[in-house]
Amino acid sequence: MSSKPTETATSPLAPRSFPEMPGVEGVLLAAGACGLKKNDKSDLMFVELAKETTVAGVFTQSLTASAPVQWSRKALKGGQARGLVVNSAGANVFTGPQGMEAVEGTVEAAADQLSCRPSKIFVASTGVIGEPLAFEKIVSALPGLNSDFSPLAWKGSAEAIMTTDTFPKGASRKADIGGVDVMINGIAKGSGMIHPNMATMLAFVFTDAALPASVLQTLLAESVETSFNAITIDSDTSTSDTVLLFATGSCQNHRPFTNAEDAGLDDFKDKLSQVMTDLAHQVVRDGEGASKFITVSIGGAETDAAAKAIAFSIANSPLVKTAIAGEDANWGRIVMAVGKAGEKVDVDHLAITIGGIPVAQKGGAIPGFDETPVAEHMKGQDITIAVEVGTGDNGKATVWTCDLTHGYIDINADYRS
Amino acid sequence: MSSKPTETATSPLAPRSFPEMPGVEGVLLAAGACGLKKNDKSDLMFVELAKETTVAGVFTQSLTASAPVQWSRKALKGGQARGLVVNSAGANVFTGPQGMEAVEGTVEAAADQLSCRPSKIFVASTGVIGEPLAFEKIVSALPGLNSDFSPLAWKGSAEAIMTTDTFPKGASRKADIGGVDVMINGIAKGSGMIHPNMATMLAFVFTDAALPASVLQTLLAESVETSFNAITIDSDTSTSDTVLLFATGSCQNHRPFTNAEDAGLDDFKDKLSQVMTDLAHQVVRDGEGASKFITVSIGGAETDAAAKAIAFSIANSPLVKTAIAGEDANWGRIVMAVGKAGEKVDVDHLAITIGGIPVAQKGGAIPGFDETPVAEHMKGQDITIAVEVGTGDNGKATVWTCDLTHGYIDINADYRS
Repeated sequence: MSSKPTETATSPLAPRSFPEMPGVEGVLLAAGACGLKKNDKSDLMFVELAKETTVAGVFTQSLTASAPVQWSRKALKGGQARGLVVNSAGANVFTGPQGMEAVEGTVEAAADQLSCRPSKIFVASTGVIGEPLAFEKIVSALPGLNSDFSPLAWKGSAEAIMTTDTFPKGASRKADIGGVDVMINGIAKGSGMIHPNMATMLAFVFTDAALPASVLQTLLAESVETSFNAITIDSDTSTSDTVLLFATGSCQNHRPFTNAEDAGLDDFKDKLSQVMTDLAHQVVRDGEGASKFITVSIGGAETDAAAKAIAFSIANSPLVKTAIAGEDANWGRIVMAVGKAGEKVDVDHLAITIGGIPVAQKGGAIPGFDETPVAEHMKGQDITIAVEVGTGDNGKATVWTCDLTHGYIDINADYRS
Repeated sequence: MSSKPTETATSPLAPRSFPEMPGVEGVLLAAGACGLKKNDKSDLMFVELAKETTVAGVFTQSLTASAPVQWSRKALKGGQARGLVVNSAGANVFTGPQGMEAVEGTVEAAADQLSCRPSKIFVASTGVIGEPLAFEKIVSALPGLNSDFSPLAWKGSAEAIMTTDTFPKGASRKADIGGVDVMINGIAKGSGMIHPNMATMLAFVFTDAALPASVLQTLLAESVETSFNAITIDSDTSTSDTVLLFATGSCQNHRPFTNAEDAGLDDFKDKLSQVMTDLAHQVVRDGEGASKFITVSIGGAETDAAAKAIAFSIANSPLVKTAIAGEDANWGRIVMAVGKAGEKVDVDHLAITIGGIPVAQKGGAIPGFDETPVAEHMKGQDITIAVEVGTGDNGKATVWTCDLTHGYIDINADYRS
């Protein structure tokens, strides 16, 4: 099959620019082209982390997870990190025994550069499935990146891990821990396809706070639930999804923590959640073919989990997503999606608003309903759908998605032949 | 919102013509226009069934099921049927208390025409959600249809229940019960949208065999599992899906049956399954925007249920479906879909064939693999994907779907604005 690379225009939902991202003490980054991508495009990111760095991680639930995911999952057990290597243009999935060989070759070379044990090197790969990863190119490029480390190479790193992402994704917040400022910086890549094969979501978040790995893992798991685990592009799950949170401990001024529930971490939690949600939203805003950013909020469900299941049933429904692409406030399809979620609803008390305007309630259309303001809302880029499912309980959830357009078909069907 | 009716060309996957369908003793049909559809298009079907008719049914699992589904589910408890009324151009879903009033008005009028109790009248509706059904039009039209009954109006009836279906769907088989011939005829409508709102699947199957309702229900439930419950267009579930099987008992020549497992019913089961599968395939072949008919077969899973879950994960994956639309033998996406199904797989023994040609095995690409014959297969209209998941067990399943094309977006996004 011949490849037919296409230059895709930047998503209409992209932020105006990459954010200002100051350094995070204990984090040095470098990015460049190692030859995996054609035309000398940037495809490799290398990060050096201070010696005390702790790490937390969340990975794809796919049962055909990539070799890099398997490695990082295992390395996470040590709770410590010294380096991170991420390549685009090769997912290293379904590559047989060669897959783990490529990972081991990569981490040994990185460990060599940073004078640490291989088990402290984390890896992630994104790109084509089923093709052996030419890891020798990565190995050859690491020394050059090692001599090029900078505390500010956030944008370049975010660009190196892009596949068919149309813009680099970064977010930064300052958090307060007991009167001491710490930084939280994150970069991510989203649902893009490289060459042709796979949508993968990767995110790497760095802070100079000093937190034990166990605390970090709890904070990350909580924050993922309402950010990366609350978005969907097309319901497909990558074999390579990876979110890693590194804490360098370079900020030695705040008191120690042993418990993630400690109130002293409240602002840190809040800012971490902002960074994660900001990155997750950017991933949706770069969804393949996306022309609308959609927020789906559910209230009045039996439990939060039930609310999330209903929200995803709406957010993953091709009929709902195509209706929104067509700027059609088609609430009948929302009713359908609520019904197929398999969670308890009270049809006679179901109420739906679009853009804050009630469109259906008490089990039926609203008599004499004026569609004009709703039609106006549908023409915008940010669409909000809220559903009260009427079981009278307090379960609630919010998820985000994008619409399903011709652009999605273009990217995914017409890419190679 | 203004409606923008579009005339859609017949699906490229349609059968060449509507099948020859002889009469089924005890079944009389009539179809016509009652004014629900514009331009005097046929929108109503009325069926009279012999007095001894038994009935079985399977309905949507949606928790926001339509009023007609609620009625028919209840009527099914009696096990007997004398009439069936089906309208298109109005789903009668989410219409508040008016919904059941419309159903009751309809069945009372039909019961009046057929001189039977209302509880022996079955109903189904398909069309727009959330708009009150103008059932008075149905009531007014029933006497005219009653005087127009014919044993051969299969095609006209199949046409009356179409929404955005591009062809009427029928199937017919003769079955042998202990040396006695009985007929099995079925009609169906598929995943089409009327005005704009809802994809609904309806199927009605009729036989002159004499079978108690309990036996019929078992036969139908078994047969649905490998026909209508083994197809998917876009993973969305209608609020109105209904499959009814009527046995008029007009053929009095075969011996009685009290048990669905009786070997004397083997040929009947086989032919019923053929009718159901034929209709289910026609629904897929008329999937919105479909250009390829896709068969997904899974073997070597832990159980049949696990195999079906994996098969549906592939068949519902937008990335797989768009790849096939692009005639791309993208087996990496099949690996991804297998992985996200949540069922046990042995990646190192996973094997995939496309069009009967091995494309991946033993956890990786096949070295030196020649893609030419696979590329040739992808250009055809009938695509077959087979996956051995390698857990060494005997679980297997086959499901059918269609590709995801620009046509789907056209129909569902661009239909009204």
